[in-house]
Amino acid sequence: MPVTPEQQSEIDALRASPKQTLRAVSEGMEAHLYKVNQVLDHGFVRVIDYMGDDAAICQAARVSYGKGTKSVQNDAGLIRYLMRHWHSTPFEMCEIKLHVKLPVFVARQWIRHRTANVNEYSARYSILDREFYIPEPDALAAQSVVNNQGRGEALSGEEAARVLEYLKGDAARCYDHYEEMIGQEGQQGLARELARMNLPANIYTQWYWKVDLHNLFHFLRLRADAHAQYEIRVYAEEICKLVADWVPAAYGAFEDYRMGGATLSSRAIDCVKRMLKGEEVTQESSGMSKGEWREFMEVVEG
Amino acid sequence: MPVTPEQQSEIDALRASPKQTLRAVSEGMEAHLYKVNQVLDHGFVRVIDYMGDDAAICQAARVSYGKGTKSVQNDAGLIRYLMRHWHSTPFEMCEIKLHVKLPVFVARQWIRHRTANVNEYSARYSILDREFYIPEPDALAAQSVVNNQGRGEALSGEEAARVLEYLKGDAARCYDHYEEMIGQEGQQGLARELARMNLPANIYTQWYWKVDLHNLFHFLRLRADAHAQYEIRVYAEEICKLVADWVPAAYGAFEDYRMGGATLSSRAIDCVKRMLKGEEVTQESSGMSKGEWREFMEVVEG
Amino acid sequence: MPVTPEQQSEIDALRASPKQTLRAVSEGMEAHLYKVNQVLDHGFVRVIDYMGDDAAICQAARVSYGKGTKSVQNDAGLIRYLMRHWHSTPFEMCEIKLHVKLPVFVARQWIRHRTANVNEYSARYSILDREFYIPEPDALAAQSVVNNQGRGEALSGEEAARVLEYLKGDAARCYDHYEEMIGQEGQQGLARELARMNLPANIYTQWYWKVDLHNLFHFLRLRADAHAQYEIRVYAEEICKLVADWVPAAYGAFEDYRMGGATLSSRAIDCVKRMLKGEEVTQESSGMSKGEWREFMEVVEG
Amino acid sequence: MPVTPEQQSEIDALRASPKQTLRAVSEGMEAHLYKVNQVLDHGFVRVIDYMGDDAAICQAARVSYGKGTKSVQNDAGLIRYLMRHWHSTPFEMCEIKLHVKLPVFVARQWIRHRTANVNEYSARYSILDREFYIPEPDALAAQSVVNNQGRGEALSGEEAARVLEYLKGDAARCYDHYEEMIGQEGQQGLARELARMNLPANIYTQWYWKVDLHNLFHFLRLRADAHAQYEIRVYAEEICKLVADWVPAAYGAFEDYRMGGATLSSRAIDCVKRMLKGEEVTQESSGMSKGEWREFMEVVEG
Repeated sequence: MPVTPEQQSEIDALRASPKQTLRAVSEGMEAHLYKVNQVLDHGFVRVIDYMGDDAAICQAARVSYGKGTKSVQNDAGLIRYLMRHWHSTPFEMCEIKLHVKLPVFVARQWIRHRTANVNEYSARYSILDREFYIPEPDALAAQSVVNNQGRGEALSGEEAARVLEYLKGDAARCYDHYEEMIGQEGQQGLARELARMNLPANIYTQWYWKVDLHNLFHFLRLRADAHAQYEIRVYAEEICKLVADWVPAAYGAFEDYRMGGATLSSRAIDCVKRMLKGEEVTQESSGMSKGEWREFMEVVEG
Repeated sequence: MPVTPEQQSEIDALRASPKQTLRAVSEGMEAHLYKVNQVLDHGFVRVIDYMGDDAAICQAARVSYGKGTKSVQNDAGLIRYLMRHWHSTPFEMCEIKLHVKLPVFVARQWIRHRTANVNEYSARYSILDREFYIPEPDALAAQSVVNNQGRGEALSGEEAARVLEYLKGDAARCYDHYEEMIGQEGQQGLARELARMNLPANIYTQWYWKVDLHNLFHFLRLRADAHAQYEIRVYAEEICKLVADWVPAAYGAFEDYRMGGATLSSRAIDCVKRMLKGEEVTQESSGMSKGEWREFMEVVEG
Repeated sequence: MPVTPEQQSEIDALRASPKQTLRAVSEGMEAHLYKVNQVLDHGFVRVIDYMGDDAAICQAARVSYGKGTKSVQNDAGLIRYLMRHWHSTPFEMCEIKLHVKLPVFVARQWIRHRTANVNEYSARYSILDREFYIPEPDALAAQSVVNNQGRGEALSGEEAARVLEYLKGDAARCYDHYEEMIGQEGQQGLARELARMNLPANIYTQWYWKVDLHNLFHFLRLRADAHAQYEIRVYAEEICKLVADWVPAAYGAFEDYRMGGATLSSRAIDCVKRMLKGEEVTQESSGMSKGEWREFMEVVEG
Repeated sequence: MPVTPEQQSEIDALRASPKQTLRAVSEGMEAHLYKVNQVLDHGFVRVIDYMGDDAAICQAARVSYGKGTKSVQNDAGLIRYLMRHWHSTPFEMCEIKLHVKLPVFVARQWIRHRTANVNEYSARYSILDREFYIPEPDALAAQSVVNNQGRGEALSGEEAARVLEYLKGDAARCYDHYEEMIGQEGQQGLARELARMNLPANIYTQWYWKVDLHNLFHFLRLRADAHAQYEIRVYAEEICKLVADWVPAAYGAFEDYRMGGATLSSRAIDCVKRMLKGEEVTQESSGMSKGEWREFMEVVEG
């Protein structure tokens, strides 16, 4: 259960108190505000605030383009144009603030996206809760045999059972000792900033994360991608749904040009041209390495 | 006149259409939204959007501090604590979007603050208006005789008159030629991206500028400072007023700790200690250079 | 003439004084250090310092990949892999510092690339030189008739002559008045920070610009592109030559995957697949707008 | 032992191969290149590369100041002036690249400094070593009783012994299970990206970290401060020694104005003025909170 009844009633109270504003409002996003979107076993994504909407992107772009945009007939078309030509600054004019609860090893990947604002729950100052990510059995994947950085099939039943036993047992024991070390009954109690070092990377942390739409799209392109680790991908996918309701035109352009698009090298473009002229092109005659060729085939045949 | 009647009626329409939102609302800022705050002769600052308020700073800090903050009795106290101890991330949780019209030479200083989002009116794409900054006579200052990077007294009447004549005449002639060069009657017309090179740096440009509160405070500390160039300082001062209404507690802490505060070197602190013990300290016995000593004296005696 | 004899002798002195270092050295780049590479009529690009080489990219990536990289057979292959899969951080491990002299209107485009370090010559503090960019006749292009943000044919002789006369005359007059205003003979002299506002945007400025290789590639992709304004493109092209000598493997991958590559949308990929199966696809049946279709045709047929 | 004999011989080989360069060289830094500076029980800091020296700071500042700097008599004086007046860009012209081995919980604090380039050893791709930070007994501090975010006295012998037993035992068991889970003898073997979640936060990781001098100073001011957590402070202190040898003038100014300096609020400055005039000022009459007053007393009396 990701939130307590007390937390839920705080959320309900916030949602029961609409106020008036003169700012741009996204109705699609208002419907999501504060709500808990569960991810993994104890995690969540909540929208705390947002700034701007599809129209705000165009408004900023039109300052950038001044009075000359009359020929671009509508906002969606302008947004597609901006996305296609890598105009990043108009998308930076929208901003979103999320409250995310996530395992530490996911947080460590996430934080590498530097162009964002973060306030994380402090384990120097406060005591972490006893909540650990324990994968579902079908998420217990074997190491990939073709890719050092990937997963293969799900583990067999017995092997999976042993893994779950280890994960659960070690988490429980480490947390028991964490509690004992910081306890102050009959002893001084170890400093929190030290005791936390005993906690494994599947413990949950939480943070406020604020980012502009351009950088959020960059995050989503990498983390909602099929090659991203499952445990961060589910967060990215949940955020995708929220963004689709917030800025539908921008999200549509993102889906077409980024998520569903592909970048071809000059060698690959040359191959496409030769193939369109009827030439039979092979990996050997393509000038590409085997890896590049395989990825190219996935694009044009996949 | 910074806005046309058409622009004013667009602003009025926006202000006449309140909507409902579940987000944090700053009443102080709602009163400013979209309004034109004139700066210099043709410039302005307008608030287009904002995210967060004083409470949002505390909310983010308390995730960062978790359950441990009960001893900080109120938001204003927490905000003062955060400001005093250089906690920057909670202030990053607020965001503001401004529409600014400003002379190009001011824009060139402003843009050096890199942690912000900008969409500028494009003179490649569009035609700039015939609007130039012409200083008021009392802003026509002489070069400082003590500081290479500063102003001295206002110019005398005759010298001031000649300067104004040059500024006005050159602006008009350059703009006339700009118009002639891009004109397409009886000729091809020079590309806008080239013709703009003939325009002097006091022509007005405009942009959307979006920044978080932490970085805005950094901008304001440097640009609302008495040593900043007058023509950017008046923008910073106008923004200060808006921020004071938006996040009064944060602005109060900023005024006390940043704008009104001072950083003393270890040498300067040593001098203060000696002076408090009754010792007569001079520049020679302070270990400071003459410049440092003069600045130190301004802090403790000024 | 971009440098004076005094400046040239300073450069010669620097190049005559090799020192020993234990750091990574790029022989290709050593040959360029300090030299003046002229751009436009009075501008230049000079390499002042650099950090890292192709091997440094791999070294950083291999920390990132630890002991697992034995299967990537050589540095060039690894670098191509990193570029293809958008791994940006290893390229950030190389850094370059340039001294650039450039017209102000070019500097205004350039500075929008925010992830870089800049120290610009201060016209508040110092007096600018009388040097203005005056285009070559064949660079005096007309406004494009198909693209608001572009150039068409070169202007005809008479129109070109008039433009050149305006540019030269206005620059000279504005600079004369600039000098008169700041002059201190028989008058106080206007503050430099004010007098500069009379100078048109084709005056030259200069700065130190330091950037990492990843962000430099991003700059080059946008600014060495055929759609970039000519006056900034010539700088980007000059830098491309320097980078090719500095990190040949990385530059090769950049050329293939970025400069020569293209990003296809999911609609475009779908069209390629249909075309490869023998289907006749038209703009109407492609799902693309006319603009998108034209750009797509340039990729697969151009 | 932080490095293996093989690693040591690689380091020796690098140090035995000086090359020629025309770049700025810092002799003080050359002496440190590649060497292992041990921190904590298994950690280290190594300088891998650097760009610039004290003179490079001045050189960049003098472009910024142009020809006007003749009155600043020497580089050290200019550097002190720049530091005192918060000129950040000249210090950004120096860059350093470090190889750091550090416990994960330290890495999690460190990475919050966003303006830096990082390549971390990937536990998705590779297998982490069995190396955990186990504090020295005198670093096993109790939770502070006056400050939620701090340490008190060292734990008593018996309590310390129990803590060490927990830390060592849990680390060993978690790592044993990590190895078992990824093992591929008689089983598929869990994906590395999953197995790593079982490892506690005192396991060591390593990364390449590259940062400019301005942002490094910001890092050092916060992390070499007495209030920083001991386990990150020892890294910052080690880096301070390296920087002192690299850019002695800049480091000297940093020590005086930042590390040894203090920022006083306007209320605090007012108190200093009153005290210097002989008034007896108390917390009650100061307008400060108790916490502010205590910190103020530490500055002027401490």
